[in-house]
Amino acid sequence: MIIILKQEAPEQKVRALIEEVQGLGMSVNYSAGAEATILGLIGDTSRVDEDKLRANEVVADVRRITEPYKKANRRFHPLDTHVAVAGRTIGEGFFHVMAGPCSVESEAQLCTVAESVKKSGATFLRGGAFKPRTSPYSFQGLEESGLDLLREARRLTGLPIVTEIMGEEQIPEFEDVDILQVGARNMQNFRLLKALGRTKKPVLLKRGLSATIEEWLMSAEYILAGGNENVILCERGIRTFETMIRNNLDISAIPLLKRQSHLPVIVDPSHAAGTAWMVEPLARAAIAAGADGLIVEVHNNPKAALCDGAQSLNPEQFDALMGEVRRRAAFEGKQMQ
Amino acid sequence: MIIILKQEAPEQKVRALIEEVQGLGMSVNYSAGAEATILGLIGDTSRVDEDKLRANEVVADVRRITEPYKKANRRFHPLDTHVAVAGRTIGEGFFHVMAGPCSVESEAQLCTVAESVKKSGATFLRGGAFKPRTSPYSFQGLEESGLDLLREARRLTGLPIVTEIMGEEQIPEFEDVDILQVGARNMQNFRLLKALGRTKKPVLLKRGLSATIEEWLMSAEYILAGGNENVILCERGIRTFETMIRNNLDISAIPLLKRQSHLPVIVDPSHAAGTAWMVEPLARAAIAAGADGLIVEVHNNPKAALCDGAQSLNPEQFDALMGEVRRRAAFEGKQMQ
Amino acid sequence: MIIILKQEAPEQKVRALIEEVQGLGMSVNYSAGAEATILGLIGDTSRVDEDKLRANEVVADVRRITEPYKKANRRFHPLDTHVAVAGRTIGEGFFHVMAGPCSVESEAQLCTVAESVKKSGATFLRGGAFKPRTSPYSFQGLEESGLDLLREARRLTGLPIVTEIMGEEQIPEFEDVDILQVGARNMQNFRLLKALGRTKKPVLLKRGLSATIEEWLMSAEYILAGGNENVILCERGIRTFETMIRNNLDISAIPLLKRQSHLPVIVDPSHAAGTAWMVEPLARAAIAAGADGLIVEVHNNPKAALCDGAQSLNPEQFDALMGEVRRRAAFEGKQMQ
Amino acid sequence: MIIILKQEAPEQKVRALIEEVQGLGMSVNYSAGAEATILGLIGDTSRVDEDKLRANEVVADVRRITEPYKKANRRFHPLDTHVAVAGRTIGEGFFHVMAGPCSVESEAQLCTVAESVKKSGATFLRGGAFKPRTSPYSFQGLEESGLDLLREARRLTGLPIVTEIMGEEQIPEFEDVDILQVGARNMQNFRLLKALGRTKKPVLLKRGLSATIEEWLMSAEYILAGGNENVILCERGIRTFETMIRNNLDISAIPLLKRQSHLPVIVDPSHAAGTAWMVEPLARAAIAAGADGLIVEVHNNPKAALCDGAQSLNPEQFDALMGEVRRRAAFEGKQMQ
Repeated sequence: MIIILKQEAPEQKVRALIEEVQGLGMSVNYSAGAEATILGLIGDTSRVDEDKLRANEVVADVRRITEPYKKANRRFHPLDTHVAVAGRTIGEGFFHVMAGPCSVESEAQLCTVAESVKKSGATFLRGGAFKPRTSPYSFQGLEESGLDLLREARRLTGLPIVTEIMGEEQIPEFEDVDILQVGARNMQNFRLLKALGRTKKPVLLKRGLSATIEEWLMSAEYILAGGNENVILCERGIRTFETMIRNNLDISAIPLLKRQSHLPVIVDPSHAAGTAWMVEPLARAAIAAGADGLIVEVHNNPKAALCDGAQSLNPEQFDALMGEVRRRAAFEGKQMQ
Repeated sequence: MIIILKQEAPEQKVRALIEEVQGLGMSVNYSAGAEATILGLIGDTSRVDEDKLRANEVVADVRRITEPYKKANRRFHPLDTHVAVAGRTIGEGFFHVMAGPCSVESEAQLCTVAESVKKSGATFLRGGAFKPRTSPYSFQGLEESGLDLLREARRLTGLPIVTEIMGEEQIPEFEDVDILQVGARNMQNFRLLKALGRTKKPVLLKRGLSATIEEWLMSAEYILAGGNENVILCERGIRTFETMIRNNLDISAIPLLKRQSHLPVIVDPSHAAGTAWMVEPLARAAIAAGADGLIVEVHNNPKAALCDGAQSLNPEQFDALMGEVRRRAAFEGKQMQ
Repeated sequence: MIIILKQEAPEQKVRALIEEVQGLGMSVNYSAGAEATILGLIGDTSRVDEDKLRANEVVADVRRITEPYKKANRRFHPLDTHVAVAGRTIGEGFFHVMAGPCSVESEAQLCTVAESVKKSGATFLRGGAFKPRTSPYSFQGLEESGLDLLREARRLTGLPIVTEIMGEEQIPEFEDVDILQVGARNMQNFRLLKALGRTKKPVLLKRGLSATIEEWLMSAEYILAGGNENVILCERGIRTFETMIRNNLDISAIPLLKRQSHLPVIVDPSHAAGTAWMVEPLARAAIAAGADGLIVEVHNNPKAALCDGAQSLNPEQFDALMGEVRRRAAFEGKQMQ
Repeated sequence: MIIILKQEAPEQKVRALIEEVQGLGMSVNYSAGAEATILGLIGDTSRVDEDKLRANEVVADVRRITEPYKKANRRFHPLDTHVAVAGRTIGEGFFHVMAGPCSVESEAQLCTVAESVKKSGATFLRGGAFKPRTSPYSFQGLEESGLDLLREARRLTGLPIVTEIMGEEQIPEFEDVDILQVGARNMQNFRLLKALGRTKKPVLLKRGLSATIEEWLMSAEYILAGGNENVILCERGIRTFETMIRNNLDISAIPLLKRQSHLPVIVDPSHAAGTAWMVEPLARAAIAAGADGLIVEVHNNPKAALCDGAQSLNPEQFDALMGEVRRRAAFEGKQMQ
């Protein structure tokens, strides 16, 4: 960490600042320059509060030179993390497709879709029971009974289930869910993240709509710091100025996360595109960029879907997509389970 | 709501779509054009799901022409809402300053600041007991004991208190808090919003970092739709590409909210600026643009603050700010209580 | 085009507006609804000025429902455009790699790089003679003599050259350049676009840093409308909030452009990444998403480069990249020339 | 400037890098830390190329700690710049309103508006002769004859004129224009900026749609570095995700520019708002935040305007605005001329 001092900072106050920083266990390197005088802090700065230093009257600016995340950082954890779920392995070298409807609507709908995606090669069933919706007047999910239907579809197909948890008080009722999804709008719901950190459940952590990669990894850090190492990152598109699409798939995030972190990276082309025809080209790009899997919305009758119909594939489209996925995962040397 | 049909859509499927929409209680105006054929939906469209229509194979696009928020909409509620809190009135015609530390740190700190801001003219005491922090390693607030200190400072000064609630399960322990703040990162924590809608507590709803005004009003709608009319909006800056500031105060939001909605609008220049010297010019602009109040961070010793020191005013700076605020609120014809 | 009328608009003024629009050769469909009354304009609206309509006192809003670009629009030009340059064909079905240094620095540098990229399989030589730089104190290019060196490298290697033009007055001296590049910062330099529209030169039109796809296609439309059909689009990353990268490659732009337009799409992974190690994963994603080629920065000694050294590949890295490119272009069924 | 070295950088290569930097006339401070080793560069770094350093294989990152702009920097030019134009002074302490139509349409229109805005108290006449339009099919301005009409209106009213220049080759025909406006889309048209730097003409430099303040000041630096000190900055709103407005007035830019630079700052509330009713609240905020003037679109008949009608005030609205402006400029202690 670097502290840039204000010009004409009184020597005495600078000395006091240096002593304050040394008191935190840091060594300080003092460097007086023509343009600026800087202090280099040497030691573990992950617990140093930049804002506090910025408030000091002799400080012009503070810059981190190392990442604030430790447990999510590949630098301190060079090997890829593999998350084991229901006999499957998620992480580098493997490729998974999680598929299913945006929201669970009925037994018939869910079971039809579940059997169909299983047949096409999906290895997880996704589906929302509790739905975060922008409008209070939109369908909010079947809630508890939606969870029950997911359990039934799992029994029927053997596919482990992925579904969204919206608050810490729901953890007990999600006890037997295979992967707990944290939605984009809850990426910085710190109470939820802390509570998940106290469990050992696999967590699929979606990226916030305008979150930087550092903020996202800091949210992962909350879960990891609590002792839960089963974190899977899910890129689902960011907000940009483009109006032709719903969100904008951040393809760079895949190689960046693979370099900065050791956690698995899943891509959600459905929410990124917002429209069914674009799911396939985005999925192709994600596989080529190094993703460890996809999460895809599939509905037996998209035009009757209670949410996200426009971006849902029908079973035939999903089956065609899976053909492409298999061919391309093999090309990249990934193992599909 | 307008449905734009795909070119060469088969007549039979278009007819089916029209019947489907009529089945929702809408009338349909059919208009065939050289460039596109459109259906105009006539009726209450607030419960029509755009996504579902978009998934229909003959639909090219769907556009709303009226706002999806009803209870937050000035069109259906032409009079300004005034929120009564502890004998004070928040809303058009009045001007309030909520001041205090970013986080409650100790009895001595909080009481010193509380007495000082009261003397300078603040009408509410703000302070965080539970702190949402980007890093799990940063100070997370004094939690329950912080709430107790806020109660004590209220007893001492008579100032009603504003503090952040982070989850629905906290509602009982916030029972006697005067204004419950929902932070930017929780603006779309829909479980929390719904739970607050079931209370009658005044809620200060901060805008999300990259939220549009419509999304923000839809979050207010969640609370209003639950039956709680005591919603106060708080603009605290949005994320832009500018690196010289922490957030970017969206000054246009003030006149837009005043026109589109009837809810009170408070401005937080401290989080927008991220630096103490800029609080005053932003406060001046907010008053001139029509804000109903300010929420300002004040610390007795900013450089020792456990959070947000860089943007906190010390008591002398706050006292000077209040001189400006009084002069300008009077110029705008606003009543300070 | 849809005109949404204000509520309580006086009938007489609405009638005047309808007559005004009919005077522009449009038919009007009138639809009175519970929530809003709308006018649907039927006819060619590409020359109707939305702003003018918005200024009418009875108009609440105006929405286009068809694209404002005509010549760039696949709807009116269903077949893919192929641009012929120096015996090569750029467009769907083919794949080209344009490679070379950010800026032309010397005869030795340029010729070394040119021979090397040719040997590795590049089909065009890129290099800047006139350089747009954020700072007036940065190297601004060798200018005219840089152009001469490009010509010499072309003579030596047979590779056609791609280089940036910065103003309309430069067109004569760029007469024998094979492809004229318009830089991101000049995407809306309309005088330059118009002037290029009066030539028949192939133009590589880079996307502006924060341009929407519609704005970009409207800039292409300027060139096409002037009578020059040789327009090649170049995606080079957009500005987002991410600080770990220079720009953010918009992978969705590739399928969107292929669907909305008929023009060839080239991707610049070097400027998107801003760092050499990320060029390859972005190139892989671009190929998988359907790009018609790449433009890549290569320098014989990146750490001595006068510009963009950090994102330049050295010849060995480029040769390795070309191995990947060939394998993947073949996988996609693209022909490399 | 700080260079952060890669971990495990070979000592010999680090030594070579240090020598390279010393060869540029810098001293180097070497600081080995637990987390990272950094080099502090001491000396004038404004001509050091960060990208070149970043390309060095032992360099992990490079960070500037001082601003890259010198002539536009208040640090090296502590006194406010005042630009003298036609007997008027633009800069701190004064307040000007530049008013007129978006585009010059006819003699009658321009002279009517010019006389009217003069009567209301405007001190400059604005109006576009050459218009940058997103669409090639929109009205492009009266061009040369528009300039002639501006000259005539100036003769008639005595108001100096402000109009947009679009290319360096136009400088001679703009010889007698009082203030040359550079539009947002040309903020980084470096050939134009350099050419204007070679004149002594006052330049109103609009901010690019997504430009950071540093980029904007670097564009001003281009003009200043050429020897032309008559630069006036014009904030006109930036692009954000908000769809209710055309652009988003960046109110923070005013105090930031006043602190970082010494150049005058004018605000354009018309382009920021995109709608007439919002011009006044934004103007009020701009005055309170410290702007040195406004540039406002006025049209005698907005609904017949050939461009930007929706955001144009009619003469009565403008006259009312001027009443507010006078009252508020006086409140801020600014002198109107």
